[in-house]
Amino acid sequence: MGEVFQKGKLAKKASFQLLNYTTEEKNEALLLISNQLLEDTDLIIKENKIDLENGRENGLSPSVLDRIMLDEKRIKDMALALQELVNLNDPVGVVVEEIEKENGLKIVKKTVPIGVMGMIYEARPNVTIDAASLALKTGNSIVLRGSSSAKQSNIALVNSIHAALEKSALPKDAVQLIEDTNRETAKELFHLKEFLDVLIPRGGKGLIDTVVKEATVPVIETGAGNCHLFIDETADKEMAINISLNGKTQRPSVCNALETILIEKNWFEQHGIALLEALHKKDVEIYGDYTVCHMFSLAKEATEEDWFTEYSALKISIKIIDGVQDAITHINTYGTKHSEAIITENKENAALFLSGVDAAAVYHNASTRFTDGFEFGYGAEIGISTQKLHARGPMGLNALTSVKFFIYGEGQIRN
Amino acid sequence: MGEVFQKGKLAKKASFQLLNYTTEEKNEALLLISNQLLEDTDLIIKENKIDLENGRENGLSPSVLDRIMLDEKRIKDMALALQELVNLNDPVGVVVEEIEKENGLKIVKKTVPIGVMGMIYEARPNVTIDAASLALKTGNSIVLRGSSSAKQSNIALVNSIHAALEKSALPKDAVQLIEDTNRETAKELFHLKEFLDVLIPRGGKGLIDTVVKEATVPVIETGAGNCHLFIDETADKEMAINISLNGKTQRPSVCNALETILIEKNWFEQHGIALLEALHKKDVEIYGDYTVCHMFSLAKEATEEDWFTEYSALKISIKIIDGVQDAITHINTYGTKHSEAIITENKENAALFLSGVDAAAVYHNASTRFTDGFEFGYGAEIGISTQKLHARGPMGLNALTSVKFFIYGEGQIRN
Repeated sequence: MGEVFQKGKLAKKASFQLLNYTTEEKNEALLLISNQLLEDTDLIIKENKIDLENGRENGLSPSVLDRIMLDEKRIKDMALALQELVNLNDPVGVVVEEIEKENGLKIVKKTVPIGVMGMIYEARPNVTIDAASLALKTGNSIVLRGSSSAKQSNIALVNSIHAALEKSALPKDAVQLIEDTNRETAKELFHLKEFLDVLIPRGGKGLIDTVVKEATVPVIETGAGNCHLFIDETADKEMAINISLNGKTQRPSVCNALETILIEKNWFEQHGIALLEALHKKDVEIYGDYTVCHMFSLAKEATEEDWFTEYSALKISIKIIDGVQDAITHINTYGTKHSEAIITENKENAALFLSGVDAAAVYHNASTRFTDGFEFGYGAEIGISTQKLHARGPMGLNALTSVKFFIYGEGQIRN
Repeated sequence: MGEVFQKGKLAKKASFQLLNYTTEEKNEALLLISNQLLEDTDLIIKENKIDLENGRENGLSPSVLDRIMLDEKRIKDMALALQELVNLNDPVGVVVEEIEKENGLKIVKKTVPIGVMGMIYEARPNVTIDAASLALKTGNSIVLRGSSSAKQSNIALVNSIHAALEKSALPKDAVQLIEDTNRETAKELFHLKEFLDVLIPRGGKGLIDTVVKEATVPVIETGAGNCHLFIDETADKEMAINISLNGKTQRPSVCNALETILIEKNWFEQHGIALLEALHKKDVEIYGDYTVCHMFSLAKEATEEDWFTEYSALKISIKIIDGVQDAITHINTYGTKHSEAIITENKENAALFLSGVDAAAVYHNASTRFTDGFEFGYGAEIGISTQKLHARGPMGLNALTSVKFFIYGEGQIRN
């Protein structure tokens, strides 16, 4: 049996042991990991340098290399995040429902850990610490499968986790790293139903689509964000421009950034040029429909493909439409069910939009950039679910729990 | 484009319309369907007779034919169930969480319909009415794909639904039946991600395994129940025998029936023969381990396969073990995470068992036969989930909802 099977089996065994530890013991382990990371900083940076060197040799882009890079500050930030995680409530063991039956049966529905999580991710080695710590906080084992580009960094980080867990009450086997980053090991994870209770992909659209398509283990889909802003006829001019700029330019690479602006035709006639100029001034490339290109010579013509595209860059597509119903239809056709906003002073249109648009988060007069576990006050985030089952939108610790019915009787049988 | 695509598309469109109806309008539609079924009883029975005739010609077993059969009483029961559904609370539009941020943003997390449900099922035409009515109650569209053996019955039932919906405020397109029961149409449904938000299989292990393995649409796994009873050393003799008999013989074909009894060795030495004789007297075939076969000559030897088997018949496998830890290990190895029970007077062992066994429902001193949406007081049941994500155990109306974040601002942008 190969590495994936062996480590999956160990993680499963550890997941049953994890059911027996208190919140205090779990928190103590998190603090030990935090300390260990600080202690091992030099070692981790040394291994990270090997990944960076290999990356340069393999021609990785500067932005990918930046995602891989670990320095003292980034490691300190990870250690701090672990300390903050300790302060969050333990979501396990919470009574969700309690039913007393006439026959004396007592039914108690309680939150429990999911069991074993699989995490498959690209580049960023901070996901290793993030995912492992959130798993431990919620009493889950985790099997990590990072990318080859961060292999040495991930090994170093998991060594620190293991060193810390050995000093703690928790079983070291609760955190497993698949070191073989061959494609075959990813495929094995997709089908490891015997040991994995859930598989969470974090990365680009390609990775997520592959996992969704191939995995037989239940998947939580995260991340893809083709987000829209609809500027309605009655939208406040300044508000619409501010929110457009914030959505597109504040951090263009993230999933809650804007990718398309839909503009009601009368608003566009009055204020359109001001908006286009403001975007252009911030170095945003504009892909427009016929009207936009006609009115603004710096715009390029948008193709059908543009309406589907999450640019994750300083590019935006813009379309002039008749009103809120068109906006809803466009978004439900091209969107990824992540975050969608309307700017309007018309309350009826706002209500129509919020109800009719099929997305995890729908905004009236605010920026889509707020869709985030920390902004929503969850104190932690595993990712942003764009599916409708189990968890939707920013996933905090609760998303890593399941439920179980405990039933207490005195010999009751069914008639 | 074929039938599946066309009907999926219509269902999707209707799902957006369904967002606009009140609880009263949904309930009115349910009552109209109830009345229509009663009115159409003769027609439905006539079509059902064609299915039964074809079934007999195709050599279907009497038990399958019984599952397909509709008579006046069964149709009346469906109509009554629809009336009862009206009395249940509407689970849509419930505020789950409300967050006010310092910057004035108001975040409201509310329950919403999932959207479009796919239902793929075998034989029983009552699932057609069950699933469609639960979908409508929760504001979901549904695409039904029954089996060829109930084709004419399903067409007749959906005709009644459509006739009723036409008299109601709700869109008729919310309920779609795939009439072509070729295997290809099932496969198309597995991959209809464009229109389906969830796919629920109801039927035998073969169907469920195929759906889980092949579907790219998110699946809720239901039903398989290889349920165990562990009789501990201190178990009350009479209680253990009663619960064994109830679990195995009260309704052997259902998923919460017992399939294996694990017996602590000292209890077996004292009371084992009494239990075996009681089972035998109720015509239960016994497949035992070495000890059981040695002590009870009517027992057959159990193979490794037996421990995995959901007999759904008057057969049971029995194993003598050392204690609660062995019981937990056995169940977590061979079980299907459905319903598991311990009989004991030892509270510590009860707690160990309930916590350590990985199943939707765990019982102390009661029969596994209680795992059921109606018994748990949900008033309705879509199925029993044996997975850990989204819903676990008996699924009531809540399981057919998702959530959505509604965010209200006055121009807030992110810093």
